[in-house]
Amino acid sequence: MNNRSTVGIGIVGGGYMGKAHAVAMAAVGAVFDTGLRPTLEVICTTTEAGATAKARAFGFKRATADWRNLVDDETVGAVIIATPADSHREIAERAIQLGKPVFCEKPLAATLEDARAMTAAAEKAGIINMTGFNYIRTPATQLAREMIEAGEIGELTAFRGEHTEDFYASPDEPATWRAQGRANGAMGDLAPHMVNAALTLAGPIESLVADIATIIGQRPGRENTSDLQPVHNDDFGQFICRFENGARGQLMFSRVAHGRKMGYIYEITGTKGALRFNQEDQNSLWFYDAGLPAARNGFRQILTGPEHPDYVNFCLGPGHGTGYQDQIIIEARDFLQAIETGGDLFPTFRDGLAVSEVLEAAYVSSDEGRWVGIREVRSQQAGGKE
Amino acid sequence: MNNRSTVGIGIVGGGYMGKAHAVAMAAVGAVFDTGLRPTLEVICTTTEAGATAKARAFGFKRATADWRNLVDDETVGAVIIATPADSHREIAERAIQLGKPVFCEKPLAATLEDARAMTAAAEKAGIINMTGFNYIRTPATQLAREMIEAGEIGELTAFRGEHTEDFYASPDEPATWRAQGRANGAMGDLAPHMVNAALTLAGPIESLVADIATIIGQRPGRENTSDLQPVHNDDFGQFICRFENGARGQLMFSRVAHGRKMGYIYEITGTKGALRFNQEDQNSLWFYDAGLPAARNGFRQILTGPEHPDYVNFCLGPGHGTGYQDQIIIEARDFLQAIETGGDLFPTFRDGLAVSEVLEAAYVSSDEGRWVGIREVRSQQAGGKE
Amino acid sequence: MNNRSTVGIGIVGGGYMGKAHAVAMAAVGAVFDTGLRPTLEVICTTTEAGATAKARAFGFKRATADWRNLVDDETVGAVIIATPADSHREIAERAIQLGKPVFCEKPLAATLEDARAMTAAAEKAGIINMTGFNYIRTPATQLAREMIEAGEIGELTAFRGEHTEDFYASPDEPATWRAQGRANGAMGDLAPHMVNAALTLAGPIESLVADIATIIGQRPGRENTSDLQPVHNDDFGQFICRFENGARGQLMFSRVAHGRKMGYIYEITGTKGALRFNQEDQNSLWFYDAGLPAARNGFRQILTGPEHPDYVNFCLGPGHGTGYQDQIIIEARDFLQAIETGGDLFPTFRDGLAVSEVLEAAYVSSDEGRWVGIREVRSQQAGGKE
Amino acid sequence: MNNRSTVGIGIVGGGYMGKAHAVAMAAVGAVFDTGLRPTLEVICTTTEAGATAKARAFGFKRATADWRNLVDDETVGAVIIATPADSHREIAERAIQLGKPVFCEKPLAATLEDARAMTAAAEKAGIINMTGFNYIRTPATQLAREMIEAGEIGELTAFRGEHTEDFYASPDEPATWRAQGRANGAMGDLAPHMVNAALTLAGPIESLVADIATIIGQRPGRENTSDLQPVHNDDFGQFICRFENGARGQLMFSRVAHGRKMGYIYEITGTKGALRFNQEDQNSLWFYDAGLPAARNGFRQILTGPEHPDYVNFCLGPGHGTGYQDQIIIEARDFLQAIETGGDLFPTFRDGLAVSEVLEAAYVSSDEGRWVGIREVRSQQAGGKE
Repeated sequence: MNNRSTVGIGIVGGGYMGKAHAVAMAAVGAVFDTGLRPTLEVICTTTEAGATAKARAFGFKRATADWRNLVDDETVGAVIIATPADSHREIAERAIQLGKPVFCEKPLAATLEDARAMTAAAEKAGIINMTGFNYIRTPATQLAREMIEAGEIGELTAFRGEHTEDFYASPDEPATWRAQGRANGAMGDLAPHMVNAALTLAGPIESLVADIATIIGQRPGRENTSDLQPVHNDDFGQFICRFENGARGQLMFSRVAHGRKMGYIYEITGTKGALRFNQEDQNSLWFYDAGLPAARNGFRQILTGPEHPDYVNFCLGPGHGTGYQDQIIIEARDFLQAIETGGDLFPTFRDGLAVSEVLEAAYVSSDEGRWVGIREVRSQQAGGKE
Repeated sequence: MNNRSTVGIGIVGGGYMGKAHAVAMAAVGAVFDTGLRPTLEVICTTTEAGATAKARAFGFKRATADWRNLVDDETVGAVIIATPADSHREIAERAIQLGKPVFCEKPLAATLEDARAMTAAAEKAGIINMTGFNYIRTPATQLAREMIEAGEIGELTAFRGEHTEDFYASPDEPATWRAQGRANGAMGDLAPHMVNAALTLAGPIESLVADIATIIGQRPGRENTSDLQPVHNDDFGQFICRFENGARGQLMFSRVAHGRKMGYIYEITGTKGALRFNQEDQNSLWFYDAGLPAARNGFRQILTGPEHPDYVNFCLGPGHGTGYQDQIIIEARDFLQAIETGGDLFPTFRDGLAVSEVLEAAYVSSDEGRWVGIREVRSQQAGGKE
Repeated sequence: MNNRSTVGIGIVGGGYMGKAHAVAMAAVGAVFDTGLRPTLEVICTTTEAGATAKARAFGFKRATADWRNLVDDETVGAVIIATPADSHREIAERAIQLGKPVFCEKPLAATLEDARAMTAAAEKAGIINMTGFNYIRTPATQLAREMIEAGEIGELTAFRGEHTEDFYASPDEPATWRAQGRANGAMGDLAPHMVNAALTLAGPIESLVADIATIIGQRPGRENTSDLQPVHNDDFGQFICRFENGARGQLMFSRVAHGRKMGYIYEITGTKGALRFNQEDQNSLWFYDAGLPAARNGFRQILTGPEHPDYVNFCLGPGHGTGYQDQIIIEARDFLQAIETGGDLFPTFRDGLAVSEVLEAAYVSSDEGRWVGIREVRSQQAGGKE
Repeated sequence: MNNRSTVGIGIVGGGYMGKAHAVAMAAVGAVFDTGLRPTLEVICTTTEAGATAKARAFGFKRATADWRNLVDDETVGAVIIATPADSHREIAERAIQLGKPVFCEKPLAATLEDARAMTAAAEKAGIINMTGFNYIRTPATQLAREMIEAGEIGELTAFRGEHTEDFYASPDEPATWRAQGRANGAMGDLAPHMVNAALTLAGPIESLVADIATIIGQRPGRENTSDLQPVHNDDFGQFICRFENGARGQLMFSRVAHGRKMGYIYEITGTKGALRFNQEDQNSLWFYDAGLPAARNGFRQILTGPEHPDYVNFCLGPGHGTGYQDQIIIEARDFLQAIETGGDLFPTFRDGLAVSEVLEAAYVSSDEGRWVGIREVRSQQAGGKE
């Protein structure tokens, strides 16, 4: 009965995101009735035993501890990369070389150079490529994008965004791998999603001035010990910016923001209204429509429902709510659809690269204590690295 | 690699809930790494063509328009009933007769008599049986239950609950099937989930006095017509009650509550604190702990996270949120687990029956304008019907 | 320069409400530029020394421990009664006898009989009379009333109200005067304000069925002692009701509702929209206008501002907020204005009496376990007492 | 009976703030039972007729259109300046010269030079001086200050603040005086209160980088006309900063923020917890105490009550709420108390000057596109101007 076209999926990485993609691929067909159906072929994790266990748990046919086996596997028609950032480029490039569609988790790469190389390679090869900015797929945020594009809040004037969490807020948390490496800092780990939101919702950034800091400079070497070790990366970053359309921006990223669990928050103002969103209440978009009479006006809580993007496939009733996993299912739908039709996709590696450019500008700005233009970063990198 | 035990699933009903269960069965193994894995065998809807389309969409192997074929199918090891309430009994009884585990959507049955018969049959046969009260599985509500059972808010003193929506709030909505039949009224359609919550969280009800009403008594026969037809069932119901433990309750159900999209709301007070919940913000449980100093106290917003029931299987980060579909996946896990282990299950047909008894008491109370004891309903029915 | 007409004010009672009225009378002229200006003449409390101290603190010219002296004082042109409820009648009747305008704190009287006598006397004498339902004067609630009267939410269908606080929620709180006397129970002390809101916003109640309870039946005799004393009055009351206009109501009153500090909450639904209010956030009225497109709709937070009733006299900026004391200043303005112009006033003794009738119906209903009509109470009392 | 010491009050300015201070002085004695009682002596506005009307309305004995008459008046023992910022210095200096206590509305002066001169003069003369930062007196913000000072949220790590309103958000609002003059821009008009909050709650700022913009560059000359006039001042400003204690700050000011009515908002994070506040809900302070168990933790809503600073004088019940006018009454109490006792006061001219320094640094930073240290501003001004 299911004589549909199928595509074999290989997932590199069996952790948090690897599992999320496995679940999404198991569910997406039933949710969206996609034309192309995925089959779970191979999963790769760091050990054979681990991979085998994950394959069994998630329903993959085969397991491997060598990502090359997975990418090269003939049954694997599309590759999902859900590994640490510094491994993305190598894996993606091999898949691209083999002409296989690639979905890569955010951040696209550990360095701007890698992101540029991956984007160039994928575009040159003309293969389907996608970056894992899942929060931009929350129905409420898709709705925000639609409303902005339709001019419902007028010309944008200001964007405030933050991605704040508190998993490292206690000074008693030990100096693990989290305290090592720029990619594991607040800017590397938390900023990409919200910078993607800023670029998607408010458009390209022209210039910015940033301050990136290590607020908790020392942490215990291990839990419940008193020897303090230095923290080698940032736990807080912020910048103010100007968008190309003239709107002003203010962004903050922190992994030491006590009380914030998933503080992916934006507030967007235009000449005709405003929008507010907080991922901690992901099923509400707050809308101020300046066109209503002042004495009856105020922000209103639009609860997402079947009239809003992608919601109806999860539930027919408004306010019943979608969750984190559903965003990954929406990504899976788009990835499969693009593979099937060859059509446009969002967000691509290019969108991931745009985020990397902004982050690079922020690092430079903070190091040098000055405003930095995104074009400057773009041209310098192009000049310096190629 | 997936040499696990499997159980073939048959779903009767291909609408809203049928789809939700299909998606859940597709995803549950990857989410929870269940010991027993489901295979999607047969789906039944009202027409062969429709069933075939649904089978193709959801990934079932076979389709039928006759539920008997499905229930009798040898590959079907467990039956999910997602049809209108008045068909539940017949389908369930056949499955029970064949010794097959049955999951039945809420309300358990269209009449108290049917609910009693189904419960008796299932218990006598000793088969696994479950009723689809999915909202009781939202992680925040599971947490509420844990906290109450652990005494974190002390002895219960008051329970306020409502299930209010607005899909029928406009007087311009036509008098469709929604306006016919007790089971489609506000009490029949909306009350069961919240009555289940009241019984689960606050314990058995001793007596109640209800007022059930048809607030919008006439509606257009069809859309955009001016001829008014009578509405034959209730659109609003409420009762006050006493729980067996002495706590007081106040419940309200409405399908004409403008602005409420999924107003499954409860507020529970005890001698040591209080809890508040609203399904429209399903990832928060509000907790007041009376033990904190008054000058620093207030309701706090617990965002569900990996420390809370079942959440961690969907996401490692707190505040990232689960949604409606995830509740159905949790139900699927419990149903499979009970089939695999023969162990206890919640909620069963008996829990569904307990809800039907309360609803019956409410109908009687409203009709006769008096307090009605739940025991009275229980004994009368037993006497009258058997 | 202040050659305006003045009226001498006498306040009986120097506690919480006595002070609030003294402050209001000191401020009202500057806030509202009233035509008639009050002068603070006499204050009466239970002891001469206490009264003298209060007079000095609040700015009264004279003090007394005998309320008759105050009422009879020639300089006193209007009397404010802010004493325990069982003393209201006697004081009011003397003032009425002398033809002096009377403002009486809520509840109007300790018994329905007293409330009836006071109302009859005041109306017969034709003197200005007012009852102190201050919460109905919060700008947001005045706005709610305006919107309902203008039909902005259509025909009313449902009213949910509560007045819940937690000052007596801990079972360790001792059995003081609060545990004695019906007037000090939850129904006597907390219900009047919200019943007044129900009658004002949703109209007259036709019938109700109530359950009034003593949830914490025993309390320590004194603080930090272990001997338990019986509690002689109610700490929780609720009823469901039918309004004369067909709308349904649900009300709850509790002094043992942990976490609620000023839970004067109402939710009003009509055929065209809905309103929500919580006195704990008294500067917001939440409005759902069913006329907006579904995909952009939701409750919106109207922050009170200069366009709303009485707000502009306190502040020119919206969202800057009024507070508790400002409600009393608004009452003072209305009282003075009525004295100056002889014009209409709200709420009067008759409004206080209407509340007393509903409370009486609730007590009877709870005692006898049955629905009680308000007319029944009205006629029985009239028959029985006169 | 009121044989207390009194002080004659003169208020220069009869607009919004002049009235607020008049009401406050009428009410403060009764609210706080102050030792020193104010008498309302003289009010000054721009015309004799206007002044006379205001005197009559607010209860002053005399009126004048010449502020010198008021300041020099022998009955005036203390002067309140509630005029446009560019007149503050002249009036204040004359009062200081006469040895009279001065209360000056915010901003302290139109220029940093004026603020420095006023502060120097007042301190040299040793007279009581106060700046009108009223929002720092809201009970919830006083509580925030107490909690921070007591270490309840640990060492501060981040401060986010905004003061956003929407009175000029519509591009159709005409180019009135609001569009002229730096002092009337968003930075001059809105920033002072929140910068004062930042300095009071998080301590001195070390350096900042700002971006100040005119987002709506053209407006109609008059209402309902189509000729566009240039806007000569800023409507949006923002900066990121470093506090001397190492914490990071992010501030935003806007008069074109649709939907924000009184967006005086701060979020303060420390190593042990966090606080959140929004003046639009001024009776709540949100507190996250990191010391509680993770599975039960979240921001909690502390409703201000009698245990919190200054609240009890307005109301005995928690959650009943104070409002805008009450802040001015609290200011009046402090001003009177300082006059009576000669004791310390907050905020003084020096606090106003500190705000002016930060604003100056922001203007310089935005003009020159670079980080600016507060010390740089302080020393340059000192060198350049004196």
